[in-house]
Amino acid sequence: MKFYIAKSRRLRSTPYTSRIENQGVTAYTTYNHMLLPASFGSLEKEYFHLKEHVQVWDVAAERQVQITGKDSSKLVQLMTCRNLSKAKIGRCYYAPIIDEQGGTLNDPVALKLDEQRWWLSLADSDIGLYAKGIASGLGLQVEITEPDVNILAIQGPKSFKLMEKVLGKKITELKFFGFDYYTFKGNKFLIARSGWSKQGGYEVYVENREAGQSLYDELFSAGKEFQVEPGCPNLIERIESALLSAGNDFDSRDNPYECGFDKYIDIVSDIDYLGKKALIKIFKEGINKKLMGVLIDTDKIEVTEEVQLYEGSNIVGDLRSATYSPDLKKTVGIAMIKKKYWDKTIPIELRIKEKSSKGRLCDLPIVS
Amino acid sequence: MKFYIAKSRRLRSTPYTSRIENQGVTAYTTYNHMLLPASFGSLEKEYFHLKEHVQVWDVAAERQVQITGKDSSKLVQLMTCRNLSKAKIGRCYYAPIIDEQGGTLNDPVALKLDEQRWWLSLADSDIGLYAKGIASGLGLQVEITEPDVNILAIQGPKSFKLMEKVLGKKITELKFFGFDYYTFKGNKFLIARSGWSKQGGYEVYVENREAGQSLYDELFSAGKEFQVEPGCPNLIERIESALLSAGNDFDSRDNPYECGFDKYIDIVSDIDYLGKKALIKIFKEGINKKLMGVLIDTDKIEVTEEVQLYEGSNIVGDLRSATYSPDLKKTVGIAMIKKKYWDKTIPIELRIKEKSSKGRLCDLPIVS
Repeated sequence: MKFYIAKSRRLRSTPYTSRIENQGVTAYTTYNHMLLPASFGSLEKEYFHLKEHVQVWDVAAERQVQITGKDSSKLVQLMTCRNLSKAKIGRCYYAPIIDEQGGTLNDPVALKLDEQRWWLSLADSDIGLYAKGIASGLGLQVEITEPDVNILAIQGPKSFKLMEKVLGKKITELKFFGFDYYTFKGNKFLIARSGWSKQGGYEVYVENREAGQSLYDELFSAGKEFQVEPGCPNLIERIESALLSAGNDFDSRDNPYECGFDKYIDIVSDIDYLGKKALIKIFKEGINKKLMGVLIDTDKIEVTEEVQLYEGSNIVGDLRSATYSPDLKKTVGIAMIKKKYWDKTIPIELRIKEKSSKGRLCDLPIVS
Repeated sequence: MKFYIAKSRRLRSTPYTSRIENQGVTAYTTYNHMLLPASFGSLEKEYFHLKEHVQVWDVAAERQVQITGKDSSKLVQLMTCRNLSKAKIGRCYYAPIIDEQGGTLNDPVALKLDEQRWWLSLADSDIGLYAKGIASGLGLQVEITEPDVNILAIQGPKSFKLMEKVLGKKITELKFFGFDYYTFKGNKFLIARSGWSKQGGYEVYVENREAGQSLYDELFSAGKEFQVEPGCPNLIERIESALLSAGNDFDSRDNPYECGFDKYIDIVSDIDYLGKKALIKIFKEGINKKLMGVLIDTDKIEVTEEVQLYEGSNIVGDLRSATYSPDLKKTVGIAMIKKKYWDKTIPIELRIKEKSSKGRLCDLPIVS
């Protein structure tokens, strides 16, 4: 069954909404109280296109929490288990945000813009409110805002050629997870080499709406020779690549070890963050579930809530995201799996209504 | 143009989702990372039905932040400008949540369940994260969770008869904004006389999913004689009644005076809350904009972002919610209006694309 989305001011439009609607967007999700395009008609067609050409995505819904002021670095560090003490201006840092119990609240990319200025480029939860609460509680000298930044992502193997054509050769020198400033028609844009696909590309942090719309239009006219298309984060590609989705694959009941964020956790240095005690305890005790990949012999699935996976009458874990992969000719998924099954030797079973499908566990990413 | 909603685990389904989908829901919005039905096909038909009969609403998306522990009352008070020092167990309190700058973050109903146990029944923002931040910053002894409570609202003039039939005579004695516990088929339910319409009714705070589903089904079989229908918060009715919607009618850039929450603001007593200093300053200086009603001579409108209202070339304010009222034969709306226009004497103009419509300002609620 399909349902319409009831639009309102609360589910904010973006500076690009009228453009993508003219270009044939068919479905939205919501993300940080904003519209995020989810399809232009065919997930599979968009998947193959993304892996071969270049797409421009309206991902303005990746909202920024801006933290400025004397205590800004202290506050950012308090929220994340990643050691940011040596963070450099001009670099992006994948930085899981956790609460005092060690629950994972969000997995933003942190951008250090200046010694006293950070952006947290968010997944879908109001981390600005968490930051405000901590700052008020501790009396920190910070200002916390949501600036009007509306990201355009340019993704796909031809994104490099397209961006070079529009912005000049210098953009090709940008390293992965680096960011710098580039000029288009007299307007300066912060551009990072990043994005929510593994096909390569950039994210343009647009701070001036009109300038961003003008860049958007230029990307499509200059991009014709690269078969540019409008697009959006692709469910198939992101599951295969194990780009986790907060709220789908994990939530605050899962700790960052269970999410596989081990390399972004520092419990050894003397940095101070809220869930540190909890994570030390979790590390010592060890975890009993973790995120893994699944491959299932079915060609149709829609996951709208946790779906249990079985071995006979035993529960193996729960499937949290899944979709059919036309490349692998199987359903690919991300699931939270009990320790007993981590060795991947035991066949699993998915049961939806009367239908049972066989499958197996695998490592993440599923395709690398 | 209409667009589908792309479902996923992140936009959580409710215990009633499969039921409302069988009953013909056509559109969803999202609210607190959950599906909230927005229409069953005709807003106008549902509006007239709601005002005459009784509807059962899946409003599980009104999530609860549960705050327990020694410092729970202290924490709840820190977040709201309403004086809750004399709050009674068994009563609901409309309690605007504000930040240190006096910005309005949410307008939940606070339920005092016990001396050390509160629920904040939320509008759409992650106030649980705000609470966690404050608690961590101050080292408060509290536990903050989102319990699996999934509200069913029974709304409309015949809701009293229906609830009496299903739950017994005692429910009719419940006073407005009171709550108590009632038993159905051996299961205890917390029920409040409240709801997001002005047509009268109840909200059942369902804590046991299966029991809630069984109650849901009973309401429909017992409700046949009262012409019960599935429904949802109705855009027309809620605008006419001035039931404000956080994120639509106001957001964190608006203070509670500007929202008309004056009677829920205490800057005089010695209670302690985060935005108190800011509100005292705002009160002394006075406000320059406030929410008002608008009546516009047009029969079609869809507000998906702020729309400016004019007097000639002057901006009067911005329209934040609006819809056509078949009763008033005009478009009704809620707008943030500049002080100069508060006396309601100056005609206003709405311009959408090439079309201009005349209108006037009015008090809230528009219909009382």
